[in-house]
Amino acid sequence: MRTLIKNSHILTMDAKRTEYSDGYIIIEDDEILGIGSYVHFSKQETDFDEVIDAHQTIAIPGMVNTHTHIGMVPFRSLGDDYPDRLRRFLFPLEKACMTKELAYHSGKYAIAEMQMAGITTFADMYYFEDALAQATDEMKSRAILGETVVDFPTCDAPKSHGGIGYAEEFIPKWLDHELITPAIAPHAPNTNHSQALKKAAALSEKYNIPMTMHVAEMDYEMNYFSEKYNATPIEFLQSIGVLSTRFIAAHCIHVSDHDLQILKQEGVGVAHCIGANTKSAKGVAPIKDMLNLAIPVGLGTDGPSSGNTLDLFTQMKLVANFHKTALHDRTAFPAKEILAMATIEGAKVLNMANEIGSLEVGKKADIVLVETKSVNMFPIFDPYAALVYSANASNVQDVFINGTTIVRDKQLVNYDLMDLRSNLTIEMAHFSKKAKELA
Amino acid sequence: MRTLIKNSHILTMDAKRTEYSDGYIIIEDDEILGIGSYVHFSKQETDFDEVIDAHQTIAIPGMVNTHTHIGMVPFRSLGDDYPDRLRRFLFPLEKACMTKELAYHSGKYAIAEMQMAGITTFADMYYFEDALAQATDEMKSRAILGETVVDFPTCDAPKSHGGIGYAEEFIPKWLDHELITPAIAPHAPNTNHSQALKKAAALSEKYNIPMTMHVAEMDYEMNYFSEKYNATPIEFLQSIGVLSTRFIAAHCIHVSDHDLQILKQEGVGVAHCIGANTKSAKGVAPIKDMLNLAIPVGLGTDGPSSGNTLDLFTQMKLVANFHKTALHDRTAFPAKEILAMATIEGAKVLNMANEIGSLEVGKKADIVLVETKSVNMFPIFDPYAALVYSANASNVQDVFINGTTIVRDKQLVNYDLMDLRSNLTIEMAHFSKKAKELA
Repeated sequence: MRTLIKNSHILTMDAKRTEYSDGYIIIEDDEILGIGSYVHFSKQETDFDEVIDAHQTIAIPGMVNTHTHIGMVPFRSLGDDYPDRLRRFLFPLEKACMTKELAYHSGKYAIAEMQMAGITTFADMYYFEDALAQATDEMKSRAILGETVVDFPTCDAPKSHGGIGYAEEFIPKWLDHELITPAIAPHAPNTNHSQALKKAAALSEKYNIPMTMHVAEMDYEMNYFSEKYNATPIEFLQSIGVLSTRFIAAHCIHVSDHDLQILKQEGVGVAHCIGANTKSAKGVAPIKDMLNLAIPVGLGTDGPSSGNTLDLFTQMKLVANFHKTALHDRTAFPAKEILAMATIEGAKVLNMANEIGSLEVGKKADIVLVETKSVNMFPIFDPYAALVYSANASNVQDVFINGTTIVRDKQLVNYDLMDLRSNLTIEMAHFSKKAKELA
Repeated sequence: MRTLIKNSHILTMDAKRTEYSDGYIIIEDDEILGIGSYVHFSKQETDFDEVIDAHQTIAIPGMVNTHTHIGMVPFRSLGDDYPDRLRRFLFPLEKACMTKELAYHSGKYAIAEMQMAGITTFADMYYFEDALAQATDEMKSRAILGETVVDFPTCDAPKSHGGIGYAEEFIPKWLDHELITPAIAPHAPNTNHSQALKKAAALSEKYNIPMTMHVAEMDYEMNYFSEKYNATPIEFLQSIGVLSTRFIAAHCIHVSDHDLQILKQEGVGVAHCIGANTKSAKGVAPIKDMLNLAIPVGLGTDGPSSGNTLDLFTQMKLVANFHKTALHDRTAFPAKEILAMATIEGAKVLNMANEIGSLEVGKKADIVLVETKSVNMFPIFDPYAALVYSANASNVQDVFINGTTIVRDKQLVNYDLMDLRSNLTIEMAHFSKKAKELA
């Protein structure tokens, strides 16, 4: 199967940030076979199974969401502005109402939302990851799926740290999947015993899979490690030997210079969730300092309960405005650098930059066409600026994952969004009733 | 002409923040004749010229953009991340390329963008306001249009402060228009002689029209008044007697407690442009302190060169995240309060709250229906949260201004967007060429 995309303004996001203002991309099966300026295109269009005229679009690599919780769509718009949201809504509802079926239908909906927003790869942390892997497989997205481990009984594990046992079955089952990488995801440093963290790290090493965790996110997390160990969470994690290049640290809001040195030394990547972090008033992670040390930093939507929208356009704007303001420098984080964080740098965080994150020959064909016909996309003197400062998720027109057309003309190719919503609504009945009682 | 809107979830934004979860609105000519729960609807549908079934929508008052520059669409995505943007791009291009015709076509495009984003009223500051009034009249938006006054020759006035003379003709010409309020708009305290500011204030008083100005926005503005007068810009403006309830102060980033007392005492309203202020690293205006003093605070997109998108959904998210973070309080600025700033509080800033800003019997029929069918709008436990944290401008489905249907099913009723863009593109030829030379 060979597809030609022509007449797009291509931002490759390769190391040189090559652009083709009137470019073409050749997809063969799951890979990019060719890319360049159309003036240098020498093949016959009749050699292709499909030719897509992508005029009035900007082509970018599929976006990489380095941290989310796809099972949490049911929580969206519930108790956003409450002080005790986690304990008032999230934990009780997860305990009482989260099921394998609800996670599965939530996952499918969340993946649809991400696909329609141009996210082709995501890293998840939740419960029932086997059901979420099923959902991901059906939706044909690329993903790292991390089973949660935490020191209390959960909806998918009746005993503390039961996620370890769950993962021991889950990981080998999905290890050879073309698009899915199973992973282990301890909830946070302060919500796990160190023995469980070590077991998780051992699984990560044994299978050579990612380990992802919320790190240095909460004030009480910082206080806990300071009081108990006279250390930061990152110092603690290093001391028990669980950090590695396979480790993906979400948030990292409260980090010291020494913490940054540790992240650098251990090869840890950071999932920066600016929207969720600032909506919850937790603070702004010092990612400029991380980037100065060449620590990989990608963007994360966080879950739909914390970040609300599962798109990186929202996040890119927030990254620009928060970090320019924090640094008192309007030239900081230029648009091109922010788009890199949403694509190739995110791929580096996930250790997938050999396969995805840029549009280059030999990489997987994860491609997004953003239309520039809509009112907000004119004029365009700088396509990076248009994507970061003007675009929103609704501008995403076509999405290819692993060479397959997933979204065409802003519609899912293989699914009816209303069906996905109906199925989720039905499955949410108990959850919704209980949620309204708590509000 | 009588129209019935039914089956919408209505957020009236009246003083009690009344909601109707299955509500109706009756429009007669330019006014809201009735509103309530559909269970109490007692009329015959056949009595209406049109019945709109607004299922799966949230109805809100037309949004109020308290500060923008509609003539500046041509500047969008040009030099966003440059340190010297104002002097490198904006001033030279305005001087060399801005014409009455370009302002007019830019204005029409900007108004279309705002209408499609649910903004029914805006306050503008630019040059060639007579041409922009023509554009506003044709597009049928409600607006305050302020002619700029500044201490150097401009594209529409060959002498310093020539805007005063322009305004003396412009104001009486549009004074009796149903939807347009002409106004006077000195650029900033530091870019006008005090005699010009006094003349502008005299015009504002003579015609009982608004005076709007950038205030306390720039570091160098603060330094200038500190060094020259040992005062803040707001103290200076009060000392020369130009502040009043007719005054709309844009930005107000750098304000002292005394400044806030002055704004309160003089009855000045504030246009808070969080997106533009933070993208340019200028800072976050202390609007919580303003609101604590009952100073009216509305939201502004600023111009498309500074704020990039002409919609208030983008601004609402930024208000939430920036102010929650600044106050270290996730419960600060709950979604309902932010939607109020985008509607009824904005109307108060413009001294138009008797006519617009909420959905109430007797008010003008400026109404927006936001669809909840799109992927980002599910589930909805709290419609305010859905609008502030999830929605984007593309969710706006139908817009009524002064009782007239302006947008239906996400399309302009009276205009083809591509025509507006083509016209603007043609008019921009010289501008675009020059802009590329400067980049």
